[in-house]
Amino acid sequence: MKAFEKLKSAVQKSSSLVCVGLDTDINKIPKHLFNEPDPILSFNKQIIEATSDVVCAYKLNSAFYESCGLTGIQALIETRKYIPSDVTAILDAKRGDIGNTSKMYAKAAFELMGFDILTVNPYLGSDAIEPFLEYENNGIFVLCLTSNPGASDFETYGPEPVYKRVAEFANEWNKKHNNCGLVVGATMTDFLNEIRVLAPDLPWLVPGVGAQGGSVEEVIEYGGEDLIINSSRAIIYAGKEKDFAQKAREEALKLKNEINKFRTNI
Amino acid sequence: MKAFEKLKSAVQKSSSLVCVGLDTDINKIPKHLFNEPDPILSFNKQIIEATSDVVCAYKLNSAFYESCGLTGIQALIETRKYIPSDVTAILDAKRGDIGNTSKMYAKAAFELMGFDILTVNPYLGSDAIEPFLEYENNGIFVLCLTSNPGASDFETYGPEPVYKRVAEFANEWNKKHNNCGLVVGATMTDFLNEIRVLAPDLPWLVPGVGAQGGSVEEVIEYGGEDLIINSSRAIIYAGKEKDFAQKAREEALKLKNEINKFRTNI
Repeated sequence: MKAFEKLKSAVQKSSSLVCVGLDTDINKIPKHLFNEPDPILSFNKQIIEATSDVVCAYKLNSAFYESCGLTGIQALIETRKYIPSDVTAILDAKRGDIGNTSKMYAKAAFELMGFDILTVNPYLGSDAIEPFLEYENNGIFVLCLTSNPGASDFETYGPEPVYKRVAEFANEWNKKHNNCGLVVGATMTDFLNEIRVLAPDLPWLVPGVGAQGGSVEEVIEYGGEDLIINSSRAIIYAGKEKDFAQKAREEALKLKNEINKFRTNI
Repeated sequence: MKAFEKLKSAVQKSSSLVCVGLDTDINKIPKHLFNEPDPILSFNKQIIEATSDVVCAYKLNSAFYESCGLTGIQALIETRKYIPSDVTAILDAKRGDIGNTSKMYAKAAFELMGFDILTVNPYLGSDAIEPFLEYENNGIFVLCLTSNPGASDFETYGPEPVYKRVAEFANEWNKKHNNCGLVVGATMTDFLNEIRVLAPDLPWLVPGVGAQGGSVEEVIEYGGEDLIINSSRAIIYAGKEKDFAQKAREEALKLKNEINKFRTNI
Protein backbone atom coordinates (compact mmCIF):
# COMPACT_ATOMS: atom_id res chain seq x y z
CA MET A 1 0.00 0.00 0.00
CA LYS A 2 1.19 3.54 -0.71
CA ALA A 3 2.41 5.38 2.39
CA PHE A 4 -0.15 8.20 2.30
CA GLU A 5 -3.02 5.73 1.73
CA LYS A 6 -1.79 3.80 4.74
CA LEU A 7 -1.75 7.06 6.71
CA LYS A 8 -5.34 7.78 5.69
CA SER A 9 -6.41 4.32 6.83
CA ALA A 10 -4.61 4.84 10.14
CA VAL A 11 -6.40 8.18 10.61
CA GLN A 12 -9.74 6.51 9.93
CA LYS A 13 -9.15 3.49 12.14
CA SER A 14 -7.98 5.55 15.12
CA SER A 15 -10.29 8.53 14.45
CA SER A 16 -7.17 10.50 15.29
CA LEU A 17 -4.92 13.07 13.63
CA VAL A 18 -2.38 12.73 16.44
CA CYS A 19 1.21 11.84 15.59
CA VAL A 20 3.37 11.11 18.61
CA GLY A 21 6.92 12.43 18.31
CA LEU A 22 9.36 9.98 19.82
CA ASP A 23 12.07 12.58 20.52
CA THR A 24 13.36 10.26 23.19
CA ASP A 25 16.05 11.90 25.30
CA ILE A 26 18.04 9.59 27.56
CA ASN A 27 18.24 12.40 30.14
CA LYS A 28 14.48 12.82 30.36
CA ILE A 29 13.11 9.30 30.64
CA PRO A 30 12.02 7.83 33.99
CA LYS A 31 14.92 6.61 36.09
CA HIS A 32 13.55 3.12 36.74
CA LEU A 33 14.09 2.31 33.03
CA PHE A 34 17.84 2.29 33.55
CA ASN A 35 17.45 -1.21 35.00
CA GLU A 36 16.46 -2.36 31.50
CA PRO A 37 19.08 -3.49 28.94
CA ASP A 38 18.05 -0.69 26.52
CA PRO A 39 16.28 2.13 28.42
CA ILE A 40 15.40 4.14 25.28
CA LEU A 41 13.86 1.15 23.56
CA SER A 42 11.93 0.16 26.72
CA PHE A 43 10.59 3.69 27.01
CA ASN A 44 9.49 3.76 23.36
CA LYS A 45 7.92 0.30 23.50
CA GLN A 46 5.80 1.22 26.51
CA ILE A 47 4.71 4.50 24.93
CA ILE A 48 3.75 2.67 21.72
CA GLU A 49 1.87 -0.07 23.59
CA ALA A 50 -0.09 2.53 25.55
CA THR A 51 -0.98 4.84 22.65
CA SER A 52 -1.13 2.93 19.34
CA ASP A 53 -4.94 2.76 19.23
CA VAL A 54 -5.38 6.52 19.70
CA VAL A 55 -2.81 7.85 17.21
CA CYS A 56 -2.28 7.58 13.44
CA ALA A 57 1.51 7.85 13.36
CA TYR A 58 4.76 7.90 15.26
CA LYS A 59 7.53 10.27 14.24
CA LEU A 60 11.03 9.29 15.30
CA ASN A 61 13.44 12.20 15.50
CA SER A 62 16.70 10.80 14.16
CA ALA A 63 18.94 13.32 15.94
CA PHE A 64 17.97 12.07 19.38
CA TYR A 65 19.03 8.53 18.47
CA GLU A 66 22.18 9.60 16.61
CA SER A 67 23.27 11.53 19.71
CA CYS A 68 23.56 8.19 21.54
CA GLY A 69 25.84 6.62 18.94
CA LEU A 70 25.43 3.06 17.67
CA THR A 71 23.31 2.06 20.68
CA GLY A 72 20.93 4.89 19.88
CA ILE A 73 20.65 3.95 16.23
CA GLN A 74 20.02 0.34 17.22
CA ALA A 75 17.18 1.60 19.44
CA LEU A 76 15.81 3.62 16.49
CA ILE A 77 15.78 0.54 14.28
CA GLU A 78 14.19 -1.67 16.95
CA THR A 79 11.58 0.96 17.83
CA ARG A 80 10.52 1.20 14.20
CA LYS A 81 9.96 -2.58 14.15
CA TYR A 82 7.76 -2.28 17.20
CA ILE A 83 5.31 0.14 15.56
CA PRO A 84 2.16 -1.82 14.58
CA SER A 85 1.91 -2.37 10.83
CA ASP A 86 -1.31 -0.35 10.51
CA VAL A 87 0.18 2.75 12.16
CA THR A 88 2.42 5.03 10.06
CA ALA A 89 6.13 5.20 10.89
CA ILE A 90 7.79 8.52 10.07
CA LEU A 91 11.52 9.17 10.25
CA ASP A 92 12.13 12.84 10.97
CA ALA A 93 15.66 13.31 9.68
CA LYS A 94 15.31 16.30 7.34
CA ARG A 95 17.67 14.79 4.80
CA GLY A 96 18.55 16.22 1.40
CA ASP A 97 21.67 16.36 -0.77
CA ILE A 98 22.67 16.10 -4.44
CA GLY A 99 21.03 13.20 -6.30
CA ASN A 100 23.52 10.38 -5.79
CA THR A 101 23.66 11.17 -2.06
CA SER A 102 19.91 11.59 -1.53
CA LYS A 103 19.61 8.14 -3.10
CA MET A 104 21.68 6.76 -0.22
CA TYR A 105 19.60 8.55 2.41
CA ALA A 106 16.44 7.17 0.77
CA LYS A 107 17.88 3.67 0.84
CA ALA A 108 18.75 3.99 4.54
CA ALA A 109 15.32 5.31 5.59
CA PHE A 110 13.03 3.26 3.35
CA GLU A 111 14.84 0.03 2.52
CA LEU A 112 17.08 -0.60 5.51
CA MET A 113 15.00 0.83 8.31
CA GLY A 114 11.59 0.37 6.72
CA PHE A 115 10.05 3.75 7.51
CA ASP A 116 6.90 4.66 5.60
CA ILE A 117 7.62 8.39 5.35
CA LEU A 118 10.73 10.58 5.69
CA THR A 119 11.00 14.33 6.28
CA VAL A 120 13.29 16.03 3.73
CA ASN A 121 14.90 19.44 3.30
CA PRO A 122 14.25 21.15 -0.07
CA TYR A 123 17.15 23.66 -0.07
CA LEU A 124 19.12 21.93 -2.87
CA GLY A 125 16.15 21.74 -5.25
CA SER A 126 14.30 19.17 -7.35
CA ASP A 127 17.14 16.79 -8.18
CA ALA A 128 17.82 16.43 -4.44
CA ILE A 129 14.21 15.39 -3.82
CA GLU A 130 13.70 13.15 -6.85
CA PRO A 131 15.45 10.04 -5.41
CA PHE A 132 13.04 10.03 -2.45
CA LEU A 133 9.99 10.45 -4.71
CA GLU A 134 11.08 7.44 -6.74
CA TYR A 135 10.09 5.17 -3.86
CA GLU A 136 6.47 5.07 -4.99
CA ASN A 137 5.26 3.10 -1.94
CA ASN A 138 6.95 5.45 0.49
CA GLY A 139 6.39 9.14 1.00
CA ILE A 140 8.05 12.39 2.04
CA PHE A 141 7.07 15.43 4.03
CA VAL A 142 9.04 18.36 2.54
CA LEU A 143 10.01 21.18 4.90
CA CYS A 144 7.97 24.18 3.78
CA LEU A 145 7.30 26.42 6.76
CA THR A 146 8.72 25.48 10.14
CA SER A 147 7.47 26.43 13.60
CA ASN A 148 10.66 27.98 15.01
CA PRO A 149 11.55 31.70 15.24
CA GLY A 150 14.28 31.33 12.57
CA ALA A 151 11.61 30.59 9.95
CA SER A 152 11.56 34.33 9.23
CA ASP A 153 15.29 34.39 8.36
CA PHE A 154 14.94 32.58 5.04
CA GLU A 155 11.62 30.72 4.67
CA THR A 156 9.21 33.67 4.85
CA TYR A 157 11.59 36.46 3.89
CA GLY A 158 11.12 38.88 1.00
CA PRO A 159 8.54 39.52 -1.69
CA GLU A 160 8.84 36.00 -3.12
CA PRO A 161 9.46 33.91 -0.02
CA VAL A 162 11.00 30.50 -0.53
CA TYR A 163 8.29 28.64 1.44
CA LYS A 164 5.74 29.58 -1.23
CA ARG A 165 7.95 28.32 -3.99
CA VAL A 166 8.57 25.09 -2.08
CA ALA A 167 4.79 24.61 -1.77
CA GLU A 168 4.41 25.12 -5.54
CA PHE A 169 7.23 22.73 -6.39
CA ALA A 170 5.96 20.09 -3.97
CA ASN A 171 2.52 20.35 -5.57
CA GLU A 172 4.12 19.52 -8.94
CA TRP A 173 6.24 16.69 -7.47
CA ASN A 174 3.07 15.23 -6.02
CA LYS A 175 1.20 15.40 -9.33
CA LYS A 176 3.86 13.16 -10.82
CA HIS A 177 4.52 10.79 -7.91
CA ASN A 178 1.52 11.08 -5.59
CA ASN A 179 3.66 10.64 -2.48
CA CYS A 180 4.58 14.12 -1.32
CA GLY A 181 3.38 16.16 1.65
CA LEU A 182 4.54 19.30 3.46
CA VAL A 183 5.82 20.20 6.91
CA VAL A 184 3.80 23.25 7.98
CA GLY A 185 4.32 24.71 11.44
CA ALA A 186 1.25 25.37 13.58
CA THR A 187 2.72 28.59 14.94
CA MET A 188 2.58 30.25 11.52
CA THR A 189 -1.18 30.76 11.20
CA ASP A 190 -0.83 33.80 8.94
CA PHE A 191 0.63 31.59 6.25
CA LEU A 192 -1.50 28.45 6.54
CA ASN A 193 -4.20 29.57 4.14
CA GLU A 194 -1.69 30.62 1.48
CA ILE A 195 0.00 27.24 1.58
CA ARG A 196 -3.34 25.41 1.34
CA VAL A 197 -4.17 27.45 -1.77
CA LEU A 198 -0.80 26.79 -3.41
CA ALA A 199 -0.90 23.06 -2.67
CA PRO A 200 -4.56 22.13 -2.20
CA ASP A 201 -4.17 18.35 -2.10
CA LEU A 202 -0.98 17.84 -0.15
CA PRO A 203 -1.09 16.21 3.27
CA TRP A 204 0.61 18.17 6.01
CA LEU A 205 2.71 17.19 8.97
CA VAL A 206 2.11 19.93 11.54
CA PRO A 207 4.57 20.45 14.39
CA GLY A 208 4.37 23.33 16.86
CA VAL A 209 1.15 22.56 18.71
CA GLY A 210 1.61 22.33 22.49
CA ALA A 211 5.03 23.38 23.83
CA GLN A 212 5.54 25.79 20.91
CA GLY A 213 2.09 27.42 21.23
CA GLY A 214 0.32 26.71 17.93
CA SER A 215 -3.50 26.67 17.86
CA VAL A 216 -5.29 23.45 16.86
CA GLU A 217 -8.41 25.37 15.87
CA GLU A 218 -6.57 27.61 13.41
CA VAL A 219 -4.63 24.70 11.93
CA ILE A 220 -7.87 22.86 11.10
CA GLU A 221 -9.62 26.07 10.00
CA TYR A 222 -6.95 27.00 7.45
CA GLY A 223 -5.32 23.66 6.71
CA GLY A 224 -8.36 21.38 6.58
CA GLU A 225 -8.28 17.79 7.74
CA ASP A 226 -5.77 16.25 5.37
CA LEU A 227 -3.05 16.70 7.95
CA ILE A 228 -1.59 15.14 11.05
CA ILE A 229 -0.56 17.05 14.16
CA ASN A 230 2.62 16.11 15.92
CA SER A 231 3.20 16.42 19.63
CA SER A 232 6.38 15.18 21.25
CA ARG A 233 7.41 16.46 24.67
CA ALA A 234 3.88 17.21 25.93
CA ILE A 235 2.90 13.57 25.38
CA ILE A 236 5.97 11.43 26.01
CA TYR A 237 7.15 13.30 29.11
CA ALA A 238 3.68 13.76 30.63
CA GLY A 239 4.71 11.45 33.47
CA LYS A 240 8.03 10.89 35.20
CA GLU A 241 7.15 7.75 37.17
CA LYS A 242 6.30 4.12 36.46
CA ASP A 243 2.92 5.16 35.02
CA PHE A 244 4.55 7.41 32.38
CA ALA A 245 3.04 5.42 29.50
CA GLN A 246 -0.47 5.72 30.95
CA LYS A 247 0.07 9.47 31.37
CA ALA A 248 1.25 9.65 27.76
CA ARG A 249 -1.93 7.87 26.67
CA GLU A 250 -4.04 10.39 28.59
CA GLU A 251 -2.25 13.31 26.90
CA ALA A 252 -2.53 11.72 23.43
CA LEU A 253 -6.24 11.12 24.00
CA LYS A 254 -6.70 14.68 25.24
CA LEU A 255 -5.05 16.05 22.09
CA LYS A 256 -7.05 13.67 19.86
CA ASN A 257 -10.31 14.92 21.40
CA GLU A 258 -9.21 18.55 21.30
CA ILE A 259 -8.50 18.21 17.57
CA ASN A 260 -11.68 16.27 16.85
CA LYS A 261 -13.81 19.05 18.33
CA PHE A 262 -12.93 21.09 15.23
CA ARG A 263 -13.21 18.31 12.62
CA THR A 264 -16.26 17.66 10.49
CA ASN A 265 -15.06 14.60 8.52
CA ILE A 266 -14.86 11.89 11.16
CA MET B 1 42.92 24.39 18.47
CA LYS B 2 39.95 25.90 16.65
CA ALA B 3 38.80 23.85 13.66
CA PHE B 4 39.45 26.48 11.00
CA GLU B 5 42.90 27.25 12.42
CA LYS B 6 43.65 23.56 12.25
CA LEU B 7 42.46 23.58 8.64
CA LYS B 8 44.79 26.49 7.83
CA SER B 9 47.73 24.63 9.37
CA ALA B 10 46.83 21.53 7.37
CA VAL B 11 46.72 23.59 4.17
CA GLN B 12 50.14 25.04 4.96
CA LYS B 13 51.77 21.77 5.93
CA SER B 14 50.53 19.91 2.84
CA SER B 15 50.72 22.93 0.49
CA SER B 16 47.39 21.62 -0.68
CA LEU B 17 43.79 22.84 -0.93
CA VAL B 18 42.61 19.34 -1.80
CA CYS B 19 39.89 17.73 0.31
CA VAL B 20 39.27 14.08 -0.52
CA GLY B 21 35.62 13.09 -0.38
CA LEU B 22 35.24 9.63 1.08
CA ASP B 23 31.88 8.91 -0.57
CA THR B 24 32.69 5.26 -0.22
CA ASP B 25 30.18 3.07 -2.06
CA ILE B 26 30.30 -0.63 -1.27
CA ASN B 27 29.37 -1.34 -4.91
CA LYS B 28 32.30 0.60 -6.33
CA ILE B 29 35.28 -0.52 -4.27
CA PRO B 30 37.80 -3.07 -5.59
CA LYS B 31 36.58 -6.64 -5.29
CA HIS B 32 39.66 -7.99 -3.48
CA LEU B 33 38.67 -5.92 -0.42
CA PHE B 34 35.74 -8.23 0.22
CA ASN B 35 38.22 -10.65 1.78
CA GLU B 36 38.73 -8.12 4.59
CA PRO B 37 36.47 -8.07 7.69
CA ASP B 38 35.27 -4.53 6.90
CA PRO B 39 35.78 -3.73 3.19
CA ILE B 40 34.66 -0.09 3.48
CA LEU B 41 37.02 0.60 6.35
CA SER B 42 39.91 -1.17 4.60
CA PHE B 43 39.28 0.90 1.49
CA ASN B 44 39.21 4.17 3.44
CA LYS B 45 42.31 3.30 5.50
CA GLN B 46 44.35 2.60 2.38
CA ILE B 47 43.16 5.81 0.69
CA ILE B 48 44.06 7.81 3.81
CA GLU B 49 47.49 6.15 4.16
CA ALA B 50 48.27 6.88 0.52
CA THR B 51 47.08 10.50 0.43
CA SER B 52 47.32 12.15 3.87
CA ASP B 53 50.51 14.10 3.07
CA VAL B 54 49.07 15.68 -0.09
CA VAL B 55 45.65 16.78 1.18
CA CYS B 56 44.38 19.16 3.88
CA ALA B 57 41.12 17.41 4.71
CA TYR B 58 38.90 14.38 4.32
CA LYS B 59 35.16 14.78 3.93
CA LEU B 60 33.06 11.78 4.87
CA ASN B 61 29.65 11.71 3.23
CA SER B 62 27.34 10.40 5.95
CA ALA B 63 24.67 9.09 3.56
CA PHE B 64 27.00 6.51 2.04
CA TYR B 65 27.68 5.03 5.48
CA GLU B 66 24.09 5.27 6.69
CA SER B 67 23.00 3.33 3.61
CA CYS B 68 24.95 0.32 4.96
CA GLY B 69 23.21 0.35 8.33
CA LEU B 70 25.02 -0.11 11.64
CA THR B 71 28.05 -1.69 9.92
CA GLY B 72 28.37 1.38 7.75
CA ILE B 73 28.12 3.78 10.67
CA GLN B 74 30.74 1.73 12.53
CA ALA B 75 33.00 2.14 9.46
CA LEU B 76 32.34 5.90 9.50
CA ILE B 77 33.37 6.15 13.15
CA GLU B 78 36.48 4.00 12.67
CA THR B 79 37.50 5.89 9.53
CA ARG B 80 37.32 9.18 11.37
CA LYS B 81 39.68 7.79 14.04
CA TYR B 82 42.13 6.81 11.33
CA ILE B 83 42.48 10.37 9.94
CA PRO B 84 45.82 11.80 11.18
CA SER B 85 45.35 14.44 13.90
CA ASP B 86 46.87 17.22 11.78
CA VAL B 87 44.48 16.65 8.85
CA THR B 88 40.95 18.07 9.09
CA ALA B 89 38.03 15.65 9.40
CA ILE B 90 34.76 16.90 7.91
CA LEU B 91 31.40 15.16 8.28
CA ASP B 92 29.23 15.98 5.29
CA ALA B 93 25.76 15.33 6.67
CA LYS B 94 23.90 18.58 5.86
CA ARG B 95 22.09 18.55 9.20
CA GLY B 96 19.77 21.25 10.50
CA ASP B 97 16.58 21.31 12.59
CA ILE B 98 14.96 23.36 15.35
CA GLY B 99 17.29 24.24 18.21
CA ASN B 100 16.82 21.34 20.61
CA THR B 101 17.25 18.88 17.70
CA SER B 102 20.27 20.59 16.11
CA LYS B 103 21.88 20.34 19.54
CA MET B 104 21.61 16.55 19.28
CA TYR B 105 23.09 16.51 15.77
CA ALA B 106 25.96 18.69 16.99
CA LYS B 107 26.59 16.33 19.88
CA ALA B 108 26.66 13.32 17.54
CA ALA B 109 29.07 14.89 15.02
CA PHE B 110 31.42 16.79 17.34
CA GLU B 111 31.36 14.99 20.69
CA LEU B 112 30.61 11.38 19.85
CA MET B 113 32.32 11.04 16.49
CA GLY B 114 34.95 13.73 16.96
CA PHE B 115 34.67 15.46 13.61
CA ASP B 116 36.31 18.89 13.32
CA ILE B 117 33.75 20.38 10.94
CA LEU B 118 30.17 19.54 9.92
CA THR B 119 28.19 20.66 6.88
CA VAL B 120 24.79 22.13 7.83
CA ASN B 121 21.61 23.18 6.02
CA PRO B 122 20.39 26.74 6.72
CA TYR B 123 16.72 26.40 5.64
CA LEU B 124 15.29 26.66 9.18
CA GLY B 125 17.22 29.83 10.06
CA SER B 126 19.51 31.14 12.80
CA ASP B 127 18.17 29.22 15.78
CA ALA B 128 18.74 25.98 13.86
CA ILE B 129 22.40 26.90 13.30
CA GLU B 130 23.20 28.36 16.72
CA PRO B 131 23.71 25.02 18.54
CA PHE B 132 26.46 24.08 16.06
CA LEU B 133 28.16 27.47 16.39
CA GLU B 134 28.30 27.05 20.16
CA TYR B 135 30.99 24.42 19.74
CA GLU B 136 33.74 27.04 19.60
CA ASN B 137 36.51 24.54 18.80
CA ASN B 138 34.54 22.96 15.98
CA GLY B 139 33.27 24.53 12.80
CA ILE B 140 30.51 24.40 10.22
CA PHE B 141 30.26 24.83 6.48
CA VAL B 142 26.78 26.21 5.78
CA LEU B 143 25.14 25.27 2.48
CA CYS B 144 25.01 28.48 0.45
CA LEU B 145 25.18 27.67 -3.24
CA THR B 146 25.36 24.04 -4.31
CA SER B 147 26.79 22.57 -7.50
CA ASN B 148 23.74 20.62 -8.70
CA PRO B 149 21.18 21.68 -11.35
CA GLY B 150 18.44 22.07 -8.70
CA ALA B 151 20.33 25.02 -7.18
CA SER B 152 18.27 27.27 -9.48
CA ASP B 153 14.95 26.03 -8.01
CA PHE B 154 15.32 27.82 -4.68
CA GLU B 155 18.90 28.94 -3.95
CA THR B 156 19.42 31.36 -6.84
CA TYR B 157 15.78 32.11 -7.69
CA GLY B 158 14.22 35.58 -7.75
CA PRO B 159 15.31 39.16 -7.17
CA GLU B 160 16.49 38.44 -3.62
CA PRO B 161 17.84 34.91 -3.88
CA VAL B 162 18.18 32.96 -0.67
CA TYR B 163 21.86 32.05 -1.25
CA LYS B 164 22.79 35.73 -0.89
CA ARG B 165 20.90 36.07 2.34
CA VAL B 166 22.53 32.89 3.65
CA ALA B 167 25.96 34.36 2.84
CA GLU B 168 25.05 37.55 4.74
CA PHE B 169 23.74 35.66 7.75
CA ALA B 170 26.76 33.34 7.82
CA ASN B 171 29.02 36.37 7.76
CA GLU B 172 27.28 37.65 10.90
CA TRP B 173 27.36 34.23 12.59
CA ASN B 174 31.08 34.12 11.93
CA LYS B 175 31.68 37.58 13.41
CA LYS B 176 30.25 36.30 16.68
CA HIS B 177 31.66 32.77 16.75
CA ASN B 178 34.56 32.71 14.30
CA ASN B 179 33.83 29.15 13.22
CA CYS B 180 31.62 29.41 10.17
CA GLY B 181 32.33 28.78 6.50
CA LEU B 182 30.22 28.26 3.36
CA VAL B 183 29.61 25.51 0.84
CA VAL B 184 29.99 27.13 -2.58
CA GLY B 185 29.71 24.98 -5.70
CA ALA B 186 32.44 25.28 -8.31
CA THR B 187 29.94 24.99 -11.16
CA MET B 188 28.32 28.32 -10.24
CA THR B 189 31.06 30.69 -11.38
CA ASP B 190 28.64 33.56 -12.11
CA PHE B 191 27.87 33.78 -8.41
CA LEU B 192 31.31 33.23 -6.85
CA ASN B 193 32.33 36.87 -6.86
CA GLU B 194 29.07 38.01 -5.30
CA ILE B 195 29.41 35.55 -2.44
CA ARG B 196 33.02 36.60 -1.82
CA VAL B 197 31.87 40.23 -1.56
CA LEU B 198 29.01 39.41 0.83
CA ALA B 199 31.19 37.24 3.07
CA PRO B 200 34.78 38.35 2.51
CA ASP B 201 36.42 36.35 5.30
CA LEU B 202 34.57 33.07 5.27
CA PRO B 203 36.38 29.89 4.29
CA TRP B 204 34.67 27.88 1.56
CA LEU B 205 34.22 24.21 0.96
CA VAL B 206 33.98 23.88 -2.82
CA PRO B 207 32.41 20.79 -4.38
CA GLY B 208 31.77 20.35 -8.08
CA VAL B 209 35.27 20.30 -9.53
CA GLY B 210 35.96 17.19 -11.62
CA ALA B 211 32.97 14.93 -12.39
CA GLN B 212 30.57 17.90 -12.16
CA GLY B 213 32.66 20.15 -14.42
CA GLY B 214 33.64 23.17 -12.28
CA SER B 215 36.78 25.14 -13.19
CA VAL B 216 39.64 25.35 -10.67
CA GLU B 217 40.97 28.52 -12.27
CA GLU B 218 37.67 30.40 -11.86
CA VAL B 219 37.18 29.19 -8.31
CA ILE B 220 40.56 30.62 -7.27
CA GLU B 221 40.09 33.76 -9.38
CA TYR B 222 36.77 34.68 -7.77
CA GLY B 223 36.94 32.89 -4.43
CA GLY B 224 40.56 33.51 -3.46
CA GLU B 225 42.63 31.00 -1.53
CA ASP B 226 40.73 30.75 1.74
CA LEU B 227 38.95 27.68 0.48
CA ILE B 228 39.34 23.96 0.03
CA ILE B 229 38.32 22.04 -3.05
CA ASN B 230 36.64 18.68 -2.66
CA SER B 231 36.96 15.82 -5.08
CA SER B 232 35.39 12.46 -4.37
CA ARG B 233 34.78 10.02 -7.20
CA ALA B 234 37.62 11.23 -9.45
CA ILE B 235 40.14 10.48 -6.71
CA ILE B 236 38.87 7.50 -4.74
CA TYR B 237 37.76 5.47 -7.75
CA ALA B 238 40.77 6.33 -9.96
CA GLY B 239 41.83 2.68 -9.79
CA LYS B 240 39.82 -0.54 -9.62
CA GLU B 241 42.67 -2.95 -8.82
CA LYS B 242 45.02 -3.63 -5.92
CA ASP B 243 46.90 -0.39 -6.62
CA PHE B 244 43.74 1.74 -6.19
CA ALA B 245 45.24 3.71 -3.29
CA GLN B 246 48.35 4.56 -5.32
CA LYS B 247 46.10 5.69 -8.21
CA ALA B 248 44.11 7.80 -5.76
CA ARG B 249 47.34 9.41 -4.58
CA GLU B 250 48.29 10.24 -8.18
CA GLU B 251 44.90 11.88 -8.79
CA ALA B 252 45.04 13.85 -5.51
CA LEU B 253 48.56 15.04 -6.38
CA LYS B 254 47.42 15.99 -9.90
CA LEU B 255 44.56 18.07 -8.47
CA LYS B 256 46.84 19.64 -5.85
CA ASN B 257 49.28 20.74 -8.57
CA GLU B 258 46.50 21.89 -10.89
CA ILE B 259 45.12 24.10 -8.10
CA ASN B 260 48.55 25.39 -7.03
CA LYS B 261 49.25 26.64 -10.56
CA PHE B 262 46.69 29.37 -9.87
CA ARG B 263 47.66 30.18 -6.28
CA THR B 264 49.95 32.99 -5.23
CA ASN B 265 50.02 32.47 -1.44
CA ILE B 266 51.90 29.22 -1.07
